[in-house]
Amino acid sequence: MTPTETAQVLVEALPYIRQFAGKSIVVKLGGAAIDRESDLALAQDVLLLRSVGVRCVLVHGGGPQVDTMLRRVGKEPEFRDGLRVTDEETLEIVRMVLVGKINRDLVATINSQAGAEPVAVGVSGEDAGLLTVTPADRALGFVGNVTGVRAELLHRLLDDGLTPVVSTIGANAEGQPYNVNADEAARAIAVAMQAEKIVYLTAVPGLLEDPKDENTLVHRLTSAELRDRIEHESVGKGMIPKLKACADAVDQGVGFAHIIDGRVHHSLLIELLTDHGVGTMVKREASW
Amino acid sequence: MTPTETAQVLVEALPYIRQFAGKSIVVKLGGAAIDRESDLALAQDVLLLRSVGVRCVLVHGGGPQVDTMLRRVGKEPEFRDGLRVTDEETLEIVRMVLVGKINRDLVATINSQAGAEPVAVGVSGEDAGLLTVTPADRALGFVGNVTGVRAELLHRLLDDGLTPVVSTIGANAEGQPYNVNADEAARAIAVAMQAEKIVYLTAVPGLLEDPKDENTLVHRLTSAELRDRIEHESVGKGMIPKLKACADAVDQGVGFAHIIDGRVHHSLLIELLTDHGVGTMVKREASW
Amino acid sequence: MTPTETAQVLVEALPYIRQFAGKSIVVKLGGAAIDRESDLALAQDVLLLRSVGVRCVLVHGGGPQVDTMLRRVGKEPEFRDGLRVTDEETLEIVRMVLVGKINRDLVATINSQAGAEPVAVGVSGEDAGLLTVTPADRALGFVGNVTGVRAELLHRLLDDGLTPVVSTIGANAEGQPYNVNADEAARAIAVAMQAEKIVYLTAVPGLLEDPKDENTLVHRLTSAELRDRIEHESVGKGMIPKLKACADAVDQGVGFAHIIDGRVHHSLLIELLTDHGVGTMVKREASW
Amino acid sequence: MTPTETAQVLVEALPYIRQFAGKSIVVKLGGAAIDRESDLALAQDVLLLRSVGVRCVLVHGGGPQVDTMLRRVGKEPEFRDGLRVTDEETLEIVRMVLVGKINRDLVATINSQAGAEPVAVGVSGEDAGLLTVTPADRALGFVGNVTGVRAELLHRLLDDGLTPVVSTIGANAEGQPYNVNADEAARAIAVAMQAEKIVYLTAVPGLLEDPKDENTLVHRLTSAELRDRIEHESVGKGMIPKLKACADAVDQGVGFAHIIDGRVHHSLLIELLTDHGVGTMVKREASW
Amino acid sequence: MTPTETAQVLVEALPYIRQFAGKSIVVKLGGAAIDRESDLALAQDVLLLRSVGVRCVLVHGGGPQVDTMLRRVGKEPEFRDGLRVTDEETLEIVRMVLVGKINRDLVATINSQAGAEPVAVGVSGEDAGLLTVTPADRALGFVGNVTGVRAELLHRLLDDGLTPVVSTIGANAEGQPYNVNADEAARAIAVAMQAEKIVYLTAVPGLLEDPKDENTLVHRLTSAELRDRIEHESVGKGMIPKLKACADAVDQGVGFAHIIDGRVHHSLLIELLTDHGVGTMVKREASW
Amino acid sequence: MTPTETAQVLVEALPYIRQFAGKSIVVKLGGAAIDRESDLALAQDVLLLRSVGVRCVLVHGGGPQVDTMLRRVGKEPEFRDGLRVTDEETLEIVRMVLVGKINRDLVATINSQAGAEPVAVGVSGEDAGLLTVTPADRALGFVGNVTGVRAELLHRLLDDGLTPVVSTIGANAEGQPYNVNADEAARAIAVAMQAEKIVYLTAVPGLLEDPKDENTLVHRLTSAELRDRIEHESVGKGMIPKLKACADAVDQGVGFAHIIDGRVHHSLLIELLTDHGVGTMVKREASW
Repeated sequence: MTPTETAQVLVEALPYIRQFAGKSIVVKLGGAAIDRESDLALAQDVLLLRSVGVRCVLVHGGGPQVDTMLRRVGKEPEFRDGLRVTDEETLEIVRMVLVGKINRDLVATINSQAGAEPVAVGVSGEDAGLLTVTPADRALGFVGNVTGVRAELLHRLLDDGLTPVVSTIGANAEGQPYNVNADEAARAIAVAMQAEKIVYLTAVPGLLEDPKDENTLVHRLTSAELRDRIEHESVGKGMIPKLKACADAVDQGVGFAHIIDGRVHHSLLIELLTDHGVGTMVKREASW
Repeated sequence: MTPTETAQVLVEALPYIRQFAGKSIVVKLGGAAIDRESDLALAQDVLLLRSVGVRCVLVHGGGPQVDTMLRRVGKEPEFRDGLRVTDEETLEIVRMVLVGKINRDLVATINSQAGAEPVAVGVSGEDAGLLTVTPADRALGFVGNVTGVRAELLHRLLDDGLTPVVSTIGANAEGQPYNVNADEAARAIAVAMQAEKIVYLTAVPGLLEDPKDENTLVHRLTSAELRDRIEHESVGKGMIPKLKACADAVDQGVGFAHIIDGRVHHSLLIELLTDHGVGTMVKREASW
Repeated sequence: MTPTETAQVLVEALPYIRQFAGKSIVVKLGGAAIDRESDLALAQDVLLLRSVGVRCVLVHGGGPQVDTMLRRVGKEPEFRDGLRVTDEETLEIVRMVLVGKINRDLVATINSQAGAEPVAVGVSGEDAGLLTVTPADRALGFVGNVTGVRAELLHRLLDDGLTPVVSTIGANAEGQPYNVNADEAARAIAVAMQAEKIVYLTAVPGLLEDPKDENTLVHRLTSAELRDRIEHESVGKGMIPKLKACADAVDQGVGFAHIIDGRVHHSLLIELLTDHGVGTMVKREASW
Repeated sequence: MTPTETAQVLVEALPYIRQFAGKSIVVKLGGAAIDRESDLALAQDVLLLRSVGVRCVLVHGGGPQVDTMLRRVGKEPEFRDGLRVTDEETLEIVRMVLVGKINRDLVATINSQAGAEPVAVGVSGEDAGLLTVTPADRALGFVGNVTGVRAELLHRLLDDGLTPVVSTIGANAEGQPYNVNADEAARAIAVAMQAEKIVYLTAVPGLLEDPKDENTLVHRLTSAELRDRIEHESVGKGMIPKLKACADAVDQGVGFAHIIDGRVHHSLLIELLTDHGVGTMVKREASW
Repeated sequence: MTPTETAQVLVEALPYIRQFAGKSIVVKLGGAAIDRESDLALAQDVLLLRSVGVRCVLVHGGGPQVDTMLRRVGKEPEFRDGLRVTDEETLEIVRMVLVGKINRDLVATINSQAGAEPVAVGVSGEDAGLLTVTPADRALGFVGNVTGVRAELLHRLLDDGLTPVVSTIGANAEGQPYNVNADEAARAIAVAMQAEKIVYLTAVPGLLEDPKDENTLVHRLTSAELRDRIEHESVGKGMIPKLKACADAVDQGVGFAHIIDGRVHHSLLIELLTDHGVGTMVKREASW
Repeated sequence: MTPTETAQVLVEALPYIRQFAGKSIVVKLGGAAIDRESDLALAQDVLLLRSVGVRCVLVHGGGPQVDTMLRRVGKEPEFRDGLRVTDEETLEIVRMVLVGKINRDLVATINSQAGAEPVAVGVSGEDAGLLTVTPADRALGFVGNVTGVRAELLHRLLDDGLTPVVSTIGANAEGQPYNVNADEAARAIAVAMQAEKIVYLTAVPGLLEDPKDENTLVHRLTSAELRDRIEHESVGKGMIPKLKACADAVDQGVGFAHIIDGRVHHSLLIELLTDHGVGTMVKREASW
């Protein structure tokens, strides 16, 4: 690259860095790991953004790994309308896998890149009442909907220079734990934190006009336009919960929601610090 | 009780409350749960002490529960000289059970007693470099000795009004997790925090002159006297690691080490806030 | 006492300690000393409460001692409707006795129990405009009604870790001193300080259904109920000013007013830190 | 006066005002009141100096008034080598007169000039351990020498914008009150406060070459020169304790000691804010 | 002077010093220097006032010096209705003379009197957007009217213990510099700073009943009375802009406006710190 | 550019941004303006760096413009050994041109790019004693060497979010102004500020092996190597003062000295935020 090209990237990025400094960004990762390289690049992105003052919170799911563990202890996963039926034994396994394995591995990956100052800390929604829930549906057992987020807990950790990694187990007022959908929990956290952005890392480039053609990426749309597409079923079915969460997030005060491709290394950095980004951006108003 | 008796307890307790306000106390719990009632009484004690300004940190082990889970996934626990041989698969199970189950259950129990303000937060030694370790012995696999404690992490949580519950998984400088002996980890944490006290909750009344006679409780002794007894093998063998940890703690700057009976409800409160206590107290100097 | 009984007192007291930490409590003592032992126990109570963060202010009267001194300098005390007629010479004696003797003795008693850190300081209502008054009744001479309390003066002393002992001499806007009724002054101070409690130490157990039978103690009543009793004269006549002050205090924002028996050692501690107390408690609303 | 003369006074005074702002000055008043007008002028001076940031502390004695009161209650004052023999009854009277009368009157006078913000507060050496003493001489009874001053107590009051007026009753470690010489107590307070100045208000113009000729005022001398004069008895005998206190004060770290004429209205202001002053100034070194 | 006379000046001045401590005062100097002695006396006054906490800002003009420099580079000054026609070349000269010469000389004079701690700093209205302007009249070229003052810039300098000397060049939103009338700029600054006073130093004693007779000084008048005189042309024509600025200043919130004689040494000090002052004082309301 | 290339620039730049955040950087500009475009790019760079927390101070010279103005007022510039002979009249012109013209133009250029928040402020070395000097050589007149820098003045402005632009006029202890060499003044300022970097913007690419061949740029060298080259005269003569200033700066504690090409737009940004830079970097030790 020529100095002029380099200068152009920097001149473009610095205002974004300034704009996001001190702002909170919630990044949701799927449980389905992509590859070790992508994970390391993401860990680097989070640490780089932190180093210039961006307050990143990671929220993770973990469906596939839970299934594996359930089967290992001889229990067949069971779903109803796409939602996991969660009896007491299942809940215990879910909690062990999310908090005791996936969260741990993410914390370890980030800290392995952080050199002398490991900054990642695991947090569960049960800790200090971070996620308060009510039961979603008796038939599903211990599956909960988020009714409260104690956002100051995350803000305090961020104020202390730490990077929280959140497992989406919540608890009701009596302290009974519940399993919570991670896309939804990430949205609730972003709204409660008055985050500038929520970013969903996925295994697709973003929202596609034609779900089968990766060249039909929609770069920007409003939440109203997004809801319209959801209603008219012009989006891939598997994407619907994530897309609804995006629309809800911006309508409830989050500045921007992004769906980006976790397979592209450093996609988080590019999406945040360049004019054009690499995925789909959702905003409330159309004043781009 | 008569008003005079009540007044006597209060007049005795208030100077202790004043003395411990703002001081840190590390409480080590065994993995072997005693009973639900004891757990609830302990949770209440921790919350009551917190309410008058005592900074409690809980550290837990979990041997028996790890054995159970290992067997459940078809793996026989293996020990060498009383220490668990920890291959990669075992480590993963240890981590899941300690961080994802025992820690979670303790957090939930405390928060269930905390009413509108749940304050317990789970922390693992891997979080933000809390416990740095080096390998203990190649033959044991991923078993580590604590070489560093980032005590300010716990102090920050306490400053924020939270009560940390610590799982004793550490990590080396490259982020590789290791299993750590919980009695030892508790001692290292107490020393690093410049704690006023370390309290080991056990299933015995304390140090006994005659390990078979619960009426032979030793109320007080110095670390030198304790080391003498350990050397002359006049103590129950199973108690030795805990007793050594007590002697080390006070010799390294912790004010007092206590071994008390976790089966007596509220034994923590009684030990701390009355003149006579209920267990064994170890101090460096004999100036009682 | 068994450990369980001891634990019970502590479990009961700690929430009160937490609740009162940082709160202000005004304690009114009569001029009629009970006995040296009671005074020492009271001094200890005040110091113990202070040590756990309760902000105690003592307010004292001194009628009998003033009479003694007046007679000593050859002047017969004179009263009209139970109120002292206070000419200039009487005022000078009142001031000398209250500020220069009773207040001094209380300060000395508390400091004698405070060991290396004497904390009691004498304050007169004249100091820095603490108590502003207007003349009560021309016929009484220099007797005043409190029209203003500079409560921040007491709060500043408390913030500095000191325990104020207040003599109830006030001054008008021109600096002329006036004698003030101590029960009334205590109420005005408690209201202005937004105190949690006002406690009147007396030589009776509290409000009695039958003033002649100490077993008929009324444990709790509302200010409305109390006013009703005053109106229907079902209370001992000598108690009326104190009872009115109690009703006024809670109706003007003080949380609770208490009348307790100063003869019972540590009655202040018991009243504040146990569920049942030892005297009569007055509250605005009946939601016990 | 012409504008030029006025300007001259201001140009001269402003650097002093700047220099003394934030500094502490201890002013000792005799018990022998001079006249009401002088008292009012002094009260104004103290308030004016306070308004520009000078931290004034007043210390008073009260011999003549004590004598009067003793006789009023039928007790003849008794002295040994010029020092009052102080039995328990005498001590009680001393305390009542100093704390309950003279201190009160000074506080009232200052507050009467302070308008909407009365700032004077009475303090006794017994309060919060302000003056710690040991017995001076068994034959004198309760007469003490100052061995400790808790200067931060006065600094805290000054920090709060208040003006302390100090009665010189001290207490030993057990809380027993003692009578203390006021000149000496003022010196001890000035030293402990690291005061810039100590000012003795007297009924003479200052130190005179010839005690009988007021025109022989010594304007400045060093503490060594002053000690020399004391030793050679070239000073009025009655002045010796005051002069020794001056020499001791500057040798122990007080910047300057002054003896000025309390009969000249506003002499305090003139001494502090003009180049030439009106009395005698004592300094450690001769570098005027 | 006698001590009594000296005391009188001090007793009179101290309340003013207290009143002005922490308050802001804007002093406007003409460009026409009077004499070196007056400048030095003014510098001393500003430093003395600063030393007792008065926050002085100096604002200067410079018409005559600009004319001299214009002629030196061969350009004849041109005026329309008394206002300077300012083309680009003129503007550059105005800026050089005001910022690069007059301001510099004032800064140097003050700092030469400030000893070890030079405190004067030059500021131009262009710096950090201090003075925002819009063009006054196309025919006049780069002459602007002040539309905004960033007063916190001056307050920050004053907070840092510095004394700002302001040149009255402003800039529009695009950064184009404009020449601004100094009397007007001083008023705008005083209003924006919520100054206690604005003082115009002139070469006359103040407002005169008869502009030809210096003995007809008007000591005090309200802004309404002043506007009335301006309207009825009973004032010297050359004084009108200054007088209007005085009336505007007090009507827009400045406490007092003063016109004083810069030729009288220390006139600033006398005007501020004595009851009678030396010039004309304008206030909004007539409640003197 | 591809996303990967963009990511690469960002991943490279972010650690630098973090490293320089909160650090001070002194940028020296020649008086010989290059072109309007370069100036605007520089202004943008300074504002972008400021926006991410870099504390930039600009220092400027102005030889050519001074010559022009001197000739305009009919005075021929005079030099001795390359240094300007500065009589009183010349000094006045130098001051007017530097402070009243060049500084002003730089401030205006930066503020024109700063939108709603103009942040540039002009400062002269005379302000508040920023640059203290002693005469350099009697024959040169008012030419001074910097003997003191009051760096906290610049730090205070930076703390307030402002960007200082410094003219290199100093003053001696009596307030007499002196002309100072700008390269030297920039070095003295950087040393006193404990700056991370000093950057000299020039009209050449940096230090060249062969001054006539721009392709022979020396990218890095130590101060010892640089001094060696200066001594052996293997550098362009005109560069010597700047090169000596670079060597002195790093030997006196500045982290790095840079000579970069002011003609390359955004060269400041590229030099600071990329691994390779565009000019010559001087460091004390060779541990690159």
